[in-house]
Amino acid sequence: MTEAASRKSFGSDNHAGTHPAVMRAIVEANTGDAIAYGADPWTEKAVAGIRQLSGAQGEVYLVLNGSGANVLGLGLLLGRHEAVICAESAHINTDECGAAERILGTKLLTVPAPDGKITPELIATRLVGRGDEHFAQPAVVAVTQSTEYGTCYSLDELRAIKEFCAANGLRVFLDGARLANAAAYLGCTLADLAGLADVLSFGGTKNGAMGVEAVVVMQPADTPSARYLRKQHMQLSSKMRFLGAQFNALLADDLWLANAAHANAMAARLATGLAAIPGVEVVYPVQADAVFARLQPGHIAELQRDWIFHVWDESASVVRWMTAFDTQESDVDAFLSDIAAAAGAVRV
Amino acid sequence: MTEAASRKSFGSDNHAGTHPAVMRAIVEANTGDAIAYGADPWTEKAVAGIRQLSGAQGEVYLVLNGSGANVLGLGLLLGRHEAVICAESAHINTDECGAAERILGTKLLTVPAPDGKITPELIATRLVGRGDEHFAQPAVVAVTQSTEYGTCYSLDELRAIKEFCAANGLRVFLDGARLANAAAYLGCTLADLAGLADVLSFGGTKNGAMGVEAVVVMQPADTPSARYLRKQHMQLSSKMRFLGAQFNALLADDLWLANAAHANAMAARLATGLAAIPGVEVVYPVQADAVFARLQPGHIAELQRDWIFHVWDESASVVRWMTAFDTQESDVDAFLSDIAAAAGAVRV
Amino acid sequence: MTEAASRKSFGSDNHAGTHPAVMRAIVEANTGDAIAYGADPWTEKAVAGIRQLSGAQGEVYLVLNGSGANVLGLGLLLGRHEAVICAESAHINTDECGAAERILGTKLLTVPAPDGKITPELIATRLVGRGDEHFAQPAVVAVTQSTEYGTCYSLDELRAIKEFCAANGLRVFLDGARLANAAAYLGCTLADLAGLADVLSFGGTKNGAMGVEAVVVMQPADTPSARYLRKQHMQLSSKMRFLGAQFNALLADDLWLANAAHANAMAARLATGLAAIPGVEVVYPVQADAVFARLQPGHIAELQRDWIFHVWDESASVVRWMTAFDTQESDVDAFLSDIAAAAGAVRV
Amino acid sequence: MTEAASRKSFGSDNHAGTHPAVMRAIVEANTGDAIAYGADPWTEKAVAGIRQLSGAQGEVYLVLNGSGANVLGLGLLLGRHEAVICAESAHINTDECGAAERILGTKLLTVPAPDGKITPELIATRLVGRGDEHFAQPAVVAVTQSTEYGTCYSLDELRAIKEFCAANGLRVFLDGARLANAAAYLGCTLADLAGLADVLSFGGTKNGAMGVEAVVVMQPADTPSARYLRKQHMQLSSKMRFLGAQFNALLADDLWLANAAHANAMAARLATGLAAIPGVEVVYPVQADAVFARLQPGHIAELQRDWIFHVWDESASVVRWMTAFDTQESDVDAFLSDIAAAAGAVRV
Repeated sequence: MTEAASRKSFGSDNHAGTHPAVMRAIVEANTGDAIAYGADPWTEKAVAGIRQLSGAQGEVYLVLNGSGANVLGLGLLLGRHEAVICAESAHINTDECGAAERILGTKLLTVPAPDGKITPELIATRLVGRGDEHFAQPAVVAVTQSTEYGTCYSLDELRAIKEFCAANGLRVFLDGARLANAAAYLGCTLADLAGLADVLSFGGTKNGAMGVEAVVVMQPADTPSARYLRKQHMQLSSKMRFLGAQFNALLADDLWLANAAHANAMAARLATGLAAIPGVEVVYPVQADAVFARLQPGHIAELQRDWIFHVWDESASVVRWMTAFDTQESDVDAFLSDIAAAAGAVRV
Repeated sequence: MTEAASRKSFGSDNHAGTHPAVMRAIVEANTGDAIAYGADPWTEKAVAGIRQLSGAQGEVYLVLNGSGANVLGLGLLLGRHEAVICAESAHINTDECGAAERILGTKLLTVPAPDGKITPELIATRLVGRGDEHFAQPAVVAVTQSTEYGTCYSLDELRAIKEFCAANGLRVFLDGARLANAAAYLGCTLADLAGLADVLSFGGTKNGAMGVEAVVVMQPADTPSARYLRKQHMQLSSKMRFLGAQFNALLADDLWLANAAHANAMAARLATGLAAIPGVEVVYPVQADAVFARLQPGHIAELQRDWIFHVWDESASVVRWMTAFDTQESDVDAFLSDIAAAAGAVRV
Repeated sequence: MTEAASRKSFGSDNHAGTHPAVMRAIVEANTGDAIAYGADPWTEKAVAGIRQLSGAQGEVYLVLNGSGANVLGLGLLLGRHEAVICAESAHINTDECGAAERILGTKLLTVPAPDGKITPELIATRLVGRGDEHFAQPAVVAVTQSTEYGTCYSLDELRAIKEFCAANGLRVFLDGARLANAAAYLGCTLADLAGLADVLSFGGTKNGAMGVEAVVVMQPADTPSARYLRKQHMQLSSKMRFLGAQFNALLADDLWLANAAHANAMAARLATGLAAIPGVEVVYPVQADAVFARLQPGHIAELQRDWIFHVWDESASVVRWMTAFDTQESDVDAFLSDIAAAAGAVRV
Repeated sequence: MTEAASRKSFGSDNHAGTHPAVMRAIVEANTGDAIAYGADPWTEKAVAGIRQLSGAQGEVYLVLNGSGANVLGLGLLLGRHEAVICAESAHINTDECGAAERILGTKLLTVPAPDGKITPELIATRLVGRGDEHFAQPAVVAVTQSTEYGTCYSLDELRAIKEFCAANGLRVFLDGARLANAAAYLGCTLADLAGLADVLSFGGTKNGAMGVEAVVVMQPADTPSARYLRKQHMQLSSKMRFLGAQFNALLADDLWLANAAHANAMAARLATGLAAIPGVEVVYPVQADAVFARLQPGHIAELQRDWIFHVWDESASVVRWMTAFDTQESDVDAFLSDIAAAAGAVRV
């Protein structure tokens, strides 16, 4: 199926296009020559902006996509014999075709995590075999904020993880492909979140950019190899100015936050509307831009005739609906109307 | 040094921006939602276009940059115990921070290659130890067309390599980051060139795109793992339509060829002008968009005050000057004038 | 703790030394010069013997240890984007410091497996995302026979796995570090077991050898890269004759089977004795050379003063006791006596 | 060809068997149970002995073979973006089937090295691109002592390399598969040699052991990950006592040095004899246990009918003859006699 949607897709926040302000910035950056690989004013401004926003003392690296950001970021914290503790549902575990294992050679020690959120207690279950050469040594805890299930860690929950990690010789990597949505939900600053990680990714693509993510290194000591590894991991863009320009647009007037707040609001509107539809069960708290719902299988098939979205767990009959910066209230309402119709149309 | 050039840079063909037609196509693709990861009409059209242009029977994969294209393409042809024969000057050897070794785990068997071009004779010197388990087994020959030195293999030269490889159980990978420049120089079709390789990259970025390359697999049998590896290698773009749109613009009315022909012409103009300047020696045949020249060290320093370019080999006092799709005759003439002045201004 | 046990250790079957017949064969092979790396008569004989015993149509490769055998064997069946389905308790997952991920770059898709044995039903739970480029593609099922818990798959159970795999495009790798113990328990031939795998390891070390394992490739088509990968994986012995000699001794008069049968019998004797000791619970069926038992924590500490063994799961208070080719009935009886004393001596 | 030689082979120092004292130590270690993986008295003694002999402040790790020692040792000194400078003729480059690239993902930056010996001047040619993210960053210089050509670095030569490296932010890895031969030739201690490296291997196998090498880490700071990586690299032996016993025998009464001195003397005797044979040219200084000689191709074929040895460079008609701890004067003399006969028998 290849398709430009005639209606709004609820399939993914990356089914959306590029925010007009971001597109404008890209077009405006297309002026004459510029040094390649990041030594250009657009990139410099973006990097400085993200450093300030995140409170990073280390460096910031623009990369091409989310997998690139995760692999680069994780790798900065890992020795060759070390392993990552993460939720079973973590993007790095389920959605990157084994990139962490292939590119970093690392082992992922997964824990089943309700609502996609790990806890010190869950982390502790994976700390067996430390000091025993037969075991890959856990060294990094990877958290996703907001999570793959559309939930958000509270700052207290993240702080508890950070403190547990500090006390147990573990570092924290934060997969922030949708970090903006968490900041919008929590009403906190990016620095509040970044300060609870050692290295994080800060996503642009799912938040209105055309295609750019940032790897943010909080402490200078973790920085030295990063730019070499970005190149080696095939994440160094030559005409980098067009990545820098995207982040500059997102950072101007806090567009990044407004986009995320809007997407969150649309997911909340969808969830609110679903509450009134019998036979549809929202299965995770709706705190970011995703709604996971359980429907009758027949309803799903019916709805997919007109709308684009993913069946998340076929056996459980659970679907994922995502909103984006450009979802309109009218999109949500039309979708709700069709969901209601589908739910009514199928005999349970 | 971070800089948006006030004058045309001769530093690299990726110091240039995005061709206006490419930028227009990107903007026009920004319309509503589209399925992510390539199942969109822009990508489909680009892939179909490149398949037709190259005569590929296998598949075409859009990726994010040149290193990504090289690593993905090479990997399709390599077993885990196999090695790549390439010129010492090959981009995969000198310019990718060891990505081939790190990401593929492969060994590069390099040969010194005059003018950047390898030959069956040079390849033959690296075929020792075949069948001996102590040796990484040569399996792929990588050629760059046009080469890192701005030279082009003739079709006969490529055919000789292909035939030698076929006779010796070797596959051919072609690094085509500047393949368009070779087609323009040789006056041949893309299919003429692609047909002499097993897998190739076809570069967009250095030829007017914002950032996109294609991996072209000539035979279907080499295809099966490619899309998984593209993801695993962190080269799968989510909002892929913006990659597809770029190639669509390049393919329309053979813009790819016109851009390359123009850049070649500007390099030729530069070389012609240099012939009249004493103390400047052009060190490789100028067949694509690059001019390598030997200057007095003092001349180099003088010129770099106003112009951006790379010193290629400091000990040999050789510089690299590159043109691009947007280089103007007046840029070349102004540069020539300054080169002449610098050459005259320094006492030898 | 470094220790040469004054009493028999029940810590591991590799706490035992070398069987006298194996040692004799090693000494006898120490005669004059021999070609290195396997082109010697001892290795040839061992390879031929193992091929015949296993019914392999492919080749047999002697390697240095169990991790080497597992990584080499698995790798023969895996593309770079492919994953392995195995039990959580699999040695490759828990005991090799992440070698599969590091050396092969592969992902392990684990399932919780009661008694250490996976089933078609458990395998099926891991077959999500096939054909979806975001998922590492399951390609190999790894079974351990006898298992890490001292249990054995029946031939029917293995056949069901093999048939399920064949029907689902999966290959079977068998970790046979203790394959001899399974053959002894099941009363079947090695070929009966090997025929239900595509590639297997056949362990010598835990069965009386000094240090040697074999990788057995059942079909010729899986063979070509194996000897190169053995070298690249640092598993090629130069003075290979001393590996070959070990297997020759094990194969002569079916010593491999007699050793395993003896170890099994000693474990059975231990289990039988335990049944009479209150407060000690045997937690897995005792079918090979291991007994897993739940004791009071205080009993464990008491016993470890005089005997060497591993606490398998501290939180569950479960220990592992292993026998070997050289365990004597009197060793078992003395151990049982001390267990009974410890169990009686601690107030619950 | 599989063959137990009826005459002494001059093919390799690993065509020899195991020194009787080493074999005796192995047999004597076969007494009852011992903790696996190195926590046994034999290993402890060997490790302590090698630490003392080498003057290492870091740790010593016994491994299974030379490739394992090289890969483990190099890896301790390398970040993921870093490269190794070594001679083209280095074993890690030519003889390990690409293990360094595959297992470590590192790039080897080779230099042509006369007599197999690199120099600060040669190293300096590979220090381009430092600080430039496009280049794999040179971090380690690997030297082989004695070299693959049977030559030895003087202590002054090694000191010059070490000082150059220290001044240039490089570490030194020493491949000491034949380090004993160098100590014997130079008349120096092992500590004299080890002190000029950061990490080294110390070979047992080619010097009379059955199969064992040591990785010696000179500074404690380089130690922490080593034992995990040894396991992950499949170099951890379970019945380690049999590795420890081998080194204990070699260290007792300096057998390691006597064995090496004897092999060196036999090579010297061979070289001396060759000087009197017209048509045979010794091509490298004979300083260890190897003699490289240029013969008429016809002579080579003639000699290989009765003697086992490698043609090193077929195009140059150069062969390699190696002696070992067990080569007898009479072996050398018989070989010389046949060489003379062959040389005389063929019309030039």
